[in-house]
Amino acid sequence: MKILHTSDWHVGLQSWVGSKAVDRLEETRQALHFLVDVAEKERVDLVLIAGDVIHSRINPRIDALNVLSEVVARFAAIAPTFLVFGNHDWQGLNCWKNFQLKNLHIIERPTTIELDDVVLSFLPYTDYQRLLGVTKDPISAMRDLLDTYLNDFRVRISSNKANVLVAHAMLEGCFESERENAILYDLKPSSFPTGFDYVALGHVHNQMQILQQPIGWYCGSPIALDFGEEKDVKGALLIEISQRTIVKPVRTPHVTLKTFVYEDYSLSNLNRLESELENFSGYARVLFKCVPSNEVRKHLLERYESVVKVEFETDWQERGADRPVEKKSLIEMYRDYVKGKYPDFEEEMVKIVEQLLREVEQSETAQD
Amino acid sequence: MKILHTSDWHVGLQSWVGSKAVDRLEETRQALHFLVDVAEKERVDLVLIAGDVIHSRINPRIDALNVLSEVVARFAAIAPTFLVFGNHDWQGLNCWKNFQLKNLHIIERPTTIELDDVVLSFLPYTDYQRLLGVTKDPISAMRDLLDTYLNDFRVRISSNKANVLVAHAMLEGCFESERENAILYDLKPSSFPTGFDYVALGHVHNQMQILQQPIGWYCGSPIALDFGEEKDVKGALLIEISQRTIVKPVRTPHVTLKTFVYEDYSLSNLNRLESELENFSGYARVLFKCVPSNEVRKHLLERYESVVKVEFETDWQERGADRPVEKKSLIEMYRDYVKGKYPDFEEEMVKIVEQLLREVEQSETAQD
Repeated sequence: MKILHTSDWHVGLQSWVGSKAVDRLEETRQALHFLVDVAEKERVDLVLIAGDVIHSRINPRIDALNVLSEVVARFAAIAPTFLVFGNHDWQGLNCWKNFQLKNLHIIERPTTIELDDVVLSFLPYTDYQRLLGVTKDPISAMRDLLDTYLNDFRVRISSNKANVLVAHAMLEGCFESERENAILYDLKPSSFPTGFDYVALGHVHNQMQILQQPIGWYCGSPIALDFGEEKDVKGALLIEISQRTIVKPVRTPHVTLKTFVYEDYSLSNLNRLESELENFSGYARVLFKCVPSNEVRKHLLERYESVVKVEFETDWQERGADRPVEKKSLIEMYRDYVKGKYPDFEEEMVKIVEQLLREVEQSETAQD
Repeated sequence: MKILHTSDWHVGLQSWVGSKAVDRLEETRQALHFLVDVAEKERVDLVLIAGDVIHSRINPRIDALNVLSEVVARFAAIAPTFLVFGNHDWQGLNCWKNFQLKNLHIIERPTTIELDDVVLSFLPYTDYQRLLGVTKDPISAMRDLLDTYLNDFRVRISSNKANVLVAHAMLEGCFESERENAILYDLKPSSFPTGFDYVALGHVHNQMQILQQPIGWYCGSPIALDFGEEKDVKGALLIEISQRTIVKPVRTPHVTLKTFVYEDYSLSNLNRLESELENFSGYARVLFKCVPSNEVRKHLLERYESVVKVEFETDWQERGADRPVEKKSLIEMYRDYVKGKYPDFEEEMVKIVEQLLREVEQSETAQD
């Protein structure tokens, strides 16, 4: 049984709106059609899409929906295709279910589906924020809920079929970048049932294997979404499950993202930078470790199409190193409030607000 | 050949948000499923939906999309179903095309489709506002465009097949209500090719026959959307085309809307009104022809679930009779400006702004 595992498409992403807006739709579309061609050539038996197919979970762009439906329709023409909801996915995709499309399955709730030769368990992104107000301790209510689902999956594992789990989730110990550090809670690998032949993960944009139980992979996003992902591996995965599981990486065509770091914008540095930029065809971020200059910023953004962001150490500090200090003050104010009113839930409640703040930031910078 | 002709569903409409918000989704859903049952029972060969299936052309409600897709999927399971875009329709519906659903055709541009026994010509709503800025005289450019399409239709008319035109448009002389008066331009019946066996129209919410050429019908919306439609006939139409065309009205189940008019809120009038309201189960608007009283308004809105609007002659005048005066002053200012800058296009340009203002008003009051 051959499976294509892909995720984190973020169709409709517009990058670097603050400095130089770049519409990534065509790049994403090309990478996705490349993957469809791979699925076709390899004659896969199953396509698993582990979430975040679209970038805006609210009011998505019409041209993004068009690309998305075009791509999933092509996948579904090849093999049964399962689209599992991630945190970015627009609930409106659910209405496609009403068309009862052969081979296209939209999965928005945890469930298990048994086919002839495989048992598929699905864990879409579960938003603990929906539990806010419903219970005093949403995080542990959330954990209980997930445990219930994982137990259901455990029971459905079949000894004479392939067993595959598809999850849009953060697994403990799997984050790498600073951004992903912001994620409040992660799933404990130990809570996963053993017995899966493969775990298809989505949420982290870097292609990487999970070495502990559950043995699985993040397949990686098809394109590099932002500079935090410069060194990520981008693509998808081809899985073959027979006696044992064989995983083969697929690389997608996409634009290179690169940060050019310079101490300052002295003439010699600018000359070196500009000759570097002349030979660079991807998307460039330039970072100077010195006082800001609007003139330099403007010059580089206007002169080089490839330059989409020019940053200076001072605002780098503002947004990076200094951020925790600034934020702590706000969070601490909230902590004081919570301490007085709900002393039992201080930690959890502060964590939730921290997470919310980070999510707002992330969605503002469109980096996830 | 048997056809179901329906239009102006406005799925997702919320009525009377300013005084008492009422979600009309369930009522609309029931009326539509009633029509699906009729199509099934009558074994229609064709379903024609003449536009405005959804209420919000921008960011439609997810539950509205769900009802819409559920209903069109049911229709498409019965017979080839053609959904023609109206002015309210969200362009995102176009992405359903990518699924190449058997029997579901989304028509957003003028076109002719030939089937075994029928030639179908489609004239979706054409938005002349898209021509603003493209040409100095958008209205006449628009007329030219429509003439081109109508000529294309004329050429495709076939003597040995049924010929049907489906249009979301305002035909000259077809409006009845004050609201519909606001529509800037209408299609001249004389510009329509002769030779259609039936013309299926959408846009006007009242069921009514067009007596001149082109002989056709507005099928009416399935529910009464606002009090301007109290006396409208609601439903759909069953058409049978053989030697001649037979049109049979279908009535949909929907809530009655009624305006209760009183001179004032004297105790005797209030007593009479309240006993009327106690025996009324639809949606009621109460209109007093006297000075406003917030107390009376509040009492009636709170006491009677059926009361969704309470108006007084003074604000009735403000919104009704006085409106043209107020508006004229704004329009006149604009006219003065246009006179100076573009004297050749004064009339057309003023007309366009008038239309825009009216459209804004209409969409604010959610009355069309």
